[in-house]
Amino acid sequence: MFQRIALIGIGLIGSSIARGVRLKGLAREIVISTRKPETLDEARSLGLGDLYTLDARQAVAGADLVILCTPVGTYRKIMDDIAPALAPGAILSDVGSVKGHVVETLGPLVPAGVHFIPGHPIAGTEHSGPAAGFAELFTNRWCILTPASGADQAATQKLTDFWRALGSNVECMEAAHHDLVLAITSHVPHLIAYNIVGTVADLEAATQSEVIKFSASGFRDFTRIAASDPVMWRDIFLTNRTAVLEMLGRFLEDLARLQRAVRVGDGPAMEDLFTRTRAIRRSIITAGQETAAPDFGRPHENAVSLPGTSEERDHGGGEDA
Amino acid sequence: MFQRIALIGIGLIGSSIARGVRLKGLAREIVISTRKPETLDEARSLGLGDLYTLDARQAVAGADLVILCTPVGTYRKIMDDIAPALAPGAILSDVGSVKGHVVETLGPLVPAGVHFIPGHPIAGTEHSGPAAGFAELFTNRWCILTPASGADQAATQKLTDFWRALGSNVECMEAAHHDLVLAITSHVPHLIAYNIVGTVADLEAATQSEVIKFSASGFRDFTRIAASDPVMWRDIFLTNRTAVLEMLGRFLEDLARLQRAVRVGDGPAMEDLFTRTRAIRRSIITAGQETAAPDFGRPHENAVSLPGTSEERDHGGGEDA
Repeated sequence: MFQRIALIGIGLIGSSIARGVRLKGLAREIVISTRKPETLDEARSLGLGDLYTLDARQAVAGADLVILCTPVGTYRKIMDDIAPALAPGAILSDVGSVKGHVVETLGPLVPAGVHFIPGHPIAGTEHSGPAAGFAELFTNRWCILTPASGADQAATQKLTDFWRALGSNVECMEAAHHDLVLAITSHVPHLIAYNIVGTVADLEAATQSEVIKFSASGFRDFTRIAASDPVMWRDIFLTNRTAVLEMLGRFLEDLARLQRAVRVGDGPAMEDLFTRTRAIRRSIITAGQETAAPDFGRPHENAVSLPGTSEERDHGGGEDA
Repeated sequence: MFQRIALIGIGLIGSSIARGVRLKGLAREIVISTRKPETLDEARSLGLGDLYTLDARQAVAGADLVILCTPVGTYRKIMDDIAPALAPGAILSDVGSVKGHVVETLGPLVPAGVHFIPGHPIAGTEHSGPAAGFAELFTNRWCILTPASGADQAATQKLTDFWRALGSNVECMEAAHHDLVLAITSHVPHLIAYNIVGTVADLEAATQSEVIKFSASGFRDFTRIAASDPVMWRDIFLTNRTAVLEMLGRFLEDLARLQRAVRVGDGPAMEDLFTRTRAIRRSIITAGQETAAPDFGRPHENAVSLPGTSEERDHGGGEDA
């Protein structure tokens, strides 16, 4: 499919792409470039690529697909470095969680003749680093592409085919829309999880130790989300501010109403909300986006719970009360 | 340990107690009482008890341990029914998620000579009903007892031994303190999860369908919590209002500060919070309250992740970004 794929950065996502490309035979050559020598050594010892270099500019020379697989905050510096070496006709893409900011920052720096098509594979695991990757990471997960309105259709189709070959479902949308949808599906949930864990961190020591002791009653699941990489998440909130504040505003309006229902003891209002929320969960199950266990994007047996199973009908998937 | 245990209600918790009592030989006789005939039939066909009756008063006659295993909202009515039949010297307990309200409501109705010791086993699964129970549900989970200050020490010790025999760790505390700790570990997390799922339920249809499609990026885990039984949770918020509002108030103060950090782009403040929250997660792992996978209280292999494993050190357990 490609002659030479250059992967700039080789963490969980980059190394999973490398393994998938190798497994499916999607490129003649894989070039891997990292900033740190030790990461490059690790990639080499894992046999993830064909060529290894600390020089990103050298990595992209002659590549017909270049994918940035580093944190969004590093893109600008990398781009300044690689822009002169990008081959005419090459596709330049990335895997970052925020897209509007990427388009604004990198768009003006892309040389004429290079097809810039930002991307975001919605997949991950609780692990990180080159050794954590695996070829099946993208199987049945979504990958969102945000080509600009004037983007070359053939290039967009080729990148779509590439992600499909890796096992993904692909959807194209505008960068701003991506950022709004991800704000409510991912960014605000993480912000809330960080916040409640922070509230506990500020409790007096005696109560805090009890919270930890009895954390299995619901709180523990929030700490799992709130243990994600601090720098990556800081960058997400710095670069997707508008959409996050918009969705957080809606969340807070609703929470004010629910807080009032608790304060005045409005049982019917609470029961109504708690019942309506089950419909959303059923929709997720129907859409095949739910699994019996959190899978961090990994394929596994019984990947799709069917709607209307006794589990969901009787009780839903709640925590210990 | 007991001559006759009467279980009023035989859902997940009640049936797990019945199985545990049978397995460990903790009572000569198990009497099961339910309101609905079909639930009683199910319990009988599962062989969970020795005697079955729709008459709760008859069930508690001659029992030296009575445990209410129904929703908290039903307690008052059951108590009016059984009070005259409770044997002197018997222990009366329950398994509800709220304790102050139970003490206030039932305390004055307990006949002299009956030892009233409310309890809360912090254990559960995503399933419900008599068939969902299993003897190991309480293994290594906490059970909190909230005896009044004047409670009989021998009775409290006997109930403690009972729960330890079922595999639980037991801790005694005041009812009001239980409610405050559970407000932040369980009730507010559920309120927040219900709220954000409600926010999505109010989004315009087009965006909502995309939220469902891309829910694996974090939102999905909130829907799992927000699919819990609406009536049970309504009752929790109706009966633990003060503690829930106190902890929700702290959460909202912190969220206002974090919202401002996002708005003004205060990267260091965000990174500081997102780093501090990891310490709480490490404490949970150190306390043996975390498991590699959500286990809904079930025992399994590798129940305790050790602190400082590469998984936690490198990345924590975040979701796809």
